[in-house]
Amino acid sequence: MYEDLLAILEDTERVSVNETVLEHHSGGTDYLERKKPDIVVFPKTEQEVVEIVKYASSKKIPIIPFGAGSSIEGHLMPVFGGISMDFTLMNEVTSVYPDDFVVKVQPGVTRMQLNKHLKKYGLFFPIDPGADATVGGMAATNASGTNAVKFGTMKHNVLGLQVVMADGSLISTGGETIKSSAGYNLTELLIGSEGTLGIFTEITLKLTGIPEATVVAKAAFETVEEAGKAAELVLQSGVGIGKMELVDAATIQAVNEFKGTDFKETPTLFLEYNGTAEATKQGITFIKELMEDSGSTHFEFENDSIKRAQLWEARHQAALAIVGRKPNRKLVSTDVCVPISQLALSIAYTRKLLEEYEMDGAILGHVGDGNFHAVFGLNTEDEEEMARFHALNEKVVTFALEHRGTCTGEHGIGVGKMKFLKEERATSLKMMKLIKRSLDPENILNPGKIFEMEEVTIE
Amino acid sequence: MYEDLLAILEDTERVSVNETVLEHHSGGTDYLERKKPDIVVFPKTEQEVVEIVKYASSKKIPIIPFGAGSSIEGHLMPVFGGISMDFTLMNEVTSVYPDDFVVKVQPGVTRMQLNKHLKKYGLFFPIDPGADATVGGMAATNASGTNAVKFGTMKHNVLGLQVVMADGSLISTGGETIKSSAGYNLTELLIGSEGTLGIFTEITLKLTGIPEATVVAKAAFETVEEAGKAAELVLQSGVGIGKMELVDAATIQAVNEFKGTDFKETPTLFLEYNGTAEATKQGITFIKELMEDSGSTHFEFENDSIKRAQLWEARHQAALAIVGRKPNRKLVSTDVCVPISQLALSIAYTRKLLEEYEMDGAILGHVGDGNFHAVFGLNTEDEEEMARFHALNEKVVTFALEHRGTCTGEHGIGVGKMKFLKEERATSLKMMKLIKRSLDPENILNPGKIFEMEEVTIE
Repeated sequence: MYEDLLAILEDTERVSVNETVLEHHSGGTDYLERKKPDIVVFPKTEQEVVEIVKYASSKKIPIIPFGAGSSIEGHLMPVFGGISMDFTLMNEVTSVYPDDFVVKVQPGVTRMQLNKHLKKYGLFFPIDPGADATVGGMAATNASGTNAVKFGTMKHNVLGLQVVMADGSLISTGGETIKSSAGYNLTELLIGSEGTLGIFTEITLKLTGIPEATVVAKAAFETVEEAGKAAELVLQSGVGIGKMELVDAATIQAVNEFKGTDFKETPTLFLEYNGTAEATKQGITFIKELMEDSGSTHFEFENDSIKRAQLWEARHQAALAIVGRKPNRKLVSTDVCVPISQLALSIAYTRKLLEEYEMDGAILGHVGDGNFHAVFGLNTEDEEEMARFHALNEKVVTFALEHRGTCTGEHGIGVGKMKFLKEERATSLKMMKLIKRSLDPENILNPGKIFEMEEVTIE
Repeated sequence: MYEDLLAILEDTERVSVNETVLEHHSGGTDYLERKKPDIVVFPKTEQEVVEIVKYASSKKIPIIPFGAGSSIEGHLMPVFGGISMDFTLMNEVTSVYPDDFVVKVQPGVTRMQLNKHLKKYGLFFPIDPGADATVGGMAATNASGTNAVKFGTMKHNVLGLQVVMADGSLISTGGETIKSSAGYNLTELLIGSEGTLGIFTEITLKLTGIPEATVVAKAAFETVEEAGKAAELVLQSGVGIGKMELVDAATIQAVNEFKGTDFKETPTLFLEYNGTAEATKQGITFIKELMEDSGSTHFEFENDSIKRAQLWEARHQAALAIVGRKPNRKLVSTDVCVPISQLALSIAYTRKLLEEYEMDGAILGHVGDGNFHAVFGLNTEDEEEMARFHALNEKVVTFALEHRGTCTGEHGIGVGKMKFLKEERATSLKMMKLIKRSLDPENILNPGKIFEMEEVTIE
């Protein structure tokens, strides 16, 4: 395989069986076992990707696309060995059309790199999953984050794709327009398909104007339920909130312990509103009234960028505070999403579970969209600790499914959540498998992810 | 076939071969030839839909789902005869979860019926394609309209589907959460699939709070290009515009002639902004400044609901004015979408084409998303007039494709745009056909739409 791939790439530095390189490509930043690929390639051009896929297709060798390595559900694990295809060297912003609010990027461009590049145009790409992930990886998992309440997820912000299919053919989907009803929506089928239906070589993104002003606020409540109700009111008002995050009291306590801060240890809503300077003034006044009407015991807001960061510190530091309390811990997280009315309930239930399982964790809720995480710093080698996490995670997922929710709001299925998907998508899994088989009959594209392939038929 | 279907529905009023009923189901409100189905059925329950599909599947009989009949590209034409499945009797709002901003409806519920139902909750469904279409039809064509600049299209507002597949199996996709990364995005593959991959029996929609206040404005410009540039500035500002429509001078002249009004006959931007009462005040002041900086010669705005309607009258009446000028005319429309920077250019080019082809038409631009229509009132029996429309439409589409656009922004492919799709999706049509074949191997679901089926292979 080495010689064949070297013949394609003609560069010994871009075809590697070096142990350190293989180890780096044996998984993401996840809690799962690691498994080395047979080889790692670093394509620089679309044509190289095509040739590698054609080669792999002819030999039935698995291909696992690899970006920043920030997956946390095992998407990057070479379950059946094969070729890990690292997109680090395909990291160019190909073209910017500022008047169209459109940019085209190679899959290895990272979120922060992109936004740095876009700043001079007064534009930005609003999806922010936290990690400095690659755009390719974010598209492959339909990533989102704290901005989703206003800007949606990747699927709302990807306009088109260049994709290498399992047989090596290069296709383009979507385009550069905001809207299109031209045939099947292949773009959004591919987004979130976790590398199992095609490999992205170029991604066309919709951009947003950087708003003139941003104001952030925090509102303290006596109970998580009251905070949840207040968040519902904000959504119902149609005020157009930018971000809305819920942090529970125990999480703020953990931040105070870790950082030596003295934030008030109560359930707290963190809010962000943006728009024109005048509109933000009015918007925040309106939000303040809503919070006070909902029983908020304390409300603060800030316009200045440094003070904004300070005001949100308890939110920003929460995951780090949990992971950082003990040395050599890995961030491990739950990721369910429930209908908005079920969020406060689900968070309170999860906090009880943490106590029951004696797990030290932060609870962070994207309360504008019902997605929340219980975040832990775990020693993934510690079987007993991991067993407790798995038991807790299963209960959190079961509770979400029982409350009309989903097992993953934004992290994806990968390897880690396959068993939950079977339960959640009991009726539609067949349709997914029919599509997978029709587009990748030899199952070479990131095999062993989302579901196990098996014979499926439709009469 | 009649006896078999009657055995399923057990109601002579819901299985029809009456000539008038067949004629009503021989197409939409489109300019295309009409072709009668063999039979029309009116299911009342999901179970009935399942049984009809199972029957049709066993006999390889085509099924064409039918809603309000407002398709304008031939989606409803029974190209190969078969069963037209009319969803008029499946028009219940199944459940409303106001605290979740979620509603479940049967496919025959119309947009206006739904919003009337939702008003008491302070919520609304923001997609407005103009016609009082059914939610099922809107989902099947990924409809949108003037609200798309703020709220997106159907695909952004459908959370989940109940779907009967070609073999009669009932599956559910998506769910009731705002976000999910659980497996392939089947929901959005099905949206816009025009009834060719599955038949919807229930649709879960994301709702929006009715904003406290709405203000509308209109801004006059000397040229279409200046109006287009002003619209770009609005988008770039991140002010969060609600609607933004561009109407050209000749269209306003037609309205004046038809309605006896005296609107200023210049290129005009129609804008809508909504939010809290205070935010709209600030927002409209900001927009006014942007318009004046962009060379607007006249700017007006209104808050009051009656005066708002008056201010937008030239926009609302435009299509009607064109169709109503002569008796017995059908509304026929182009529907391309281009990147925003190409819109003013495309509109100016289209106006020239109208003059060249001596076609009397209104030009209406959804300038926030690059989608625009040239709307005509045509005698579809007049072959010479229709030939001119087809020649013009082809030039409009070709221009759009040459300017990085798409042949349809919101009306879909149906029968009318199949030849353009071949050109636009030259590389990805194979992938669409592989999916269609995998999910509907006998090609019974609305056959003859989007593309012609043929043998496709992937190695």
